[in-house]
Amino acid sequence: MTIIHSASNYGTVTIVGVGLIGASLGLALKQAGVVTKVYGVGRSKSNLDEALKLGAIDAVIDLAQAAKQSDVIVLCVPVAQMRSAFEVIEPYLESRTLITDAGSTKGDVILAAKEVLGKKACQFVPAHPIAGGAQHGAAAAKADLFKGKQTILCPLQENSAQDTDLIAGFWESVGSDVKKIGSVQHDAIYAAVSHLPHILSYALMASVVNSEDADQKLGHVGAGFKDFTRIAASSPEMWRDICLGNRTAILKELDQYLLIVNHLRKLISDNDGAGLEKLFNKASKARQDLDML
Amino acid sequence: MTIIHSASNYGTVTIVGVGLIGASLGLALKQAGVVTKVYGVGRSKSNLDEALKLGAIDAVIDLAQAAKQSDVIVLCVPVAQMRSAFEVIEPYLESRTLITDAGSTKGDVILAAKEVLGKKACQFVPAHPIAGGAQHGAAAAKADLFKGKQTILCPLQENSAQDTDLIAGFWESVGSDVKKIGSVQHDAIYAAVSHLPHILSYALMASVVNSEDADQKLGHVGAGFKDFTRIAASSPEMWRDICLGNRTAILKELDQYLLIVNHLRKLISDNDGAGLEKLFNKASKARQDLDML
Repeated sequence: MTIIHSASNYGTVTIVGVGLIGASLGLALKQAGVVTKVYGVGRSKSNLDEALKLGAIDAVIDLAQAAKQSDVIVLCVPVAQMRSAFEVIEPYLESRTLITDAGSTKGDVILAAKEVLGKKACQFVPAHPIAGGAQHGAAAAKADLFKGKQTILCPLQENSAQDTDLIAGFWESVGSDVKKIGSVQHDAIYAAVSHLPHILSYALMASVVNSEDADQKLGHVGAGFKDFTRIAASSPEMWRDICLGNRTAILKELDQYLLIVNHLRKLISDNDGAGLEKLFNKASKARQDLDML
Repeated sequence: MTIIHSASNYGTVTIVGVGLIGASLGLALKQAGVVTKVYGVGRSKSNLDEALKLGAIDAVIDLAQAAKQSDVIVLCVPVAQMRSAFEVIEPYLESRTLITDAGSTKGDVILAAKEVLGKKACQFVPAHPIAGGAQHGAAAAKADLFKGKQTILCPLQENSAQDTDLIAGFWESVGSDVKKIGSVQHDAIYAAVSHLPHILSYALMASVVNSEDADQKLGHVGAGFKDFTRIAASSPEMWRDICLGNRTAILKELDQYLLIVNHLRKLISDNDGAGLEKLFNKASKARQDLDML
């Protein structure tokens, strides 16, 4: 399907959304010398200007033009904006062009791709680079953002082995370790180890702030509270979109979690010291083991 | 009531429980030069030997003897063991002797003191030094453990102003900043900012470990998950006792928290993006403000 003849050059690449992830990808691809030209698409003129200045992109283009001219299109927009990106691309999408993405959730993005792209969905190889940082925007971009980090690839049944290999090589070219897992499993895993902790951390901050003696409480927080709530400082828009995009898996993980919390509530209420110690022991050992990995 | 004539010397001090907190207190008191003699009481011979070797205590004594001979007795045992310590002390407690403690919960310790000591409860000035560390036992003791840290004092109505001042000065002598608040307020504040996060963190580790694909999930954890669950590596025994000791306040804070989580669950289930963003915004702003303090 594709005319990219060599895994050592991905030709003309368009990055849609030149924030931290998109602009870092542009820098990394150019530093690796695996692209002929990098176009940037975006809504924020200041981000596009910054990306041009940094050399993360060579020129700004509109998305319809990009669909016609690119060998690879990488969607680095928030997951809630993936569908409308597919809608703009679809009428102009050449059969030689491959699409990949950098979304934190996969089931919703894949559904949008299949609904909008139809048969052309075989040209979309979904990905999730596990990279990011506290800072946002093109100005925070780093060429080594992906180095040594995992990129999860969730190939579709419709993807050819060749296209999947090309997109795997594409993400490897910026230094990441590519790991393939199914999209359902991806969404379940990240619901548990990333999305749920963010929701619970936001909830604790909201609970403390909403309480009558909020100022007193906030005046007594220690290192443990700060660790626990650090992720509650994350972008509200991004996490709103992740909650909606991975709704089913998050609700399943949340309900499993609430079973444990309600069990703990009952142990405390029943003064069941042995039960509490047993549960805490298991959790404590698992957490200590995590630091050994 | 007391014959300690000067806030610059606390005479003979007995430390009951010479773990990290108790042994550090001995070192700090001796370094500050505000004690004549420091006795150590404990169940663990190795901790007592270590405390003697470090010079945190001058001699080992039994608790009944300590009650007769001490100007100040400091209970540094886990909160669940405070009642039995009061029971051993009570028959021998001289009217000149003051008692203070280092328990993480106050309502339960105060109840035990009032029930066991009766009228002599006026000699007990409850305290909670906000100090600790990842390591345990006398071997981890540091003379500067309390330096610059808060010690919360929860004086009883029965305490004389003079005795309260003496115990405040005692905790100040080891470098801590003494702050007085009521015991009910203390227990509510620490239930929210310390005890609840520990319980929620244990619960997430237990939920992940109990799930069918636990290994897959644990293989994909990132920095956010590790921050969130760091406190789940804490001592199961200590947190069992805190859960039981501060049961009422913890259940109240947990129920307030569960209201927020269930509200969030409904927002996700209802696809209510605006509601999610509003709640996340408030929480995110509060967490960012916390880093400015």
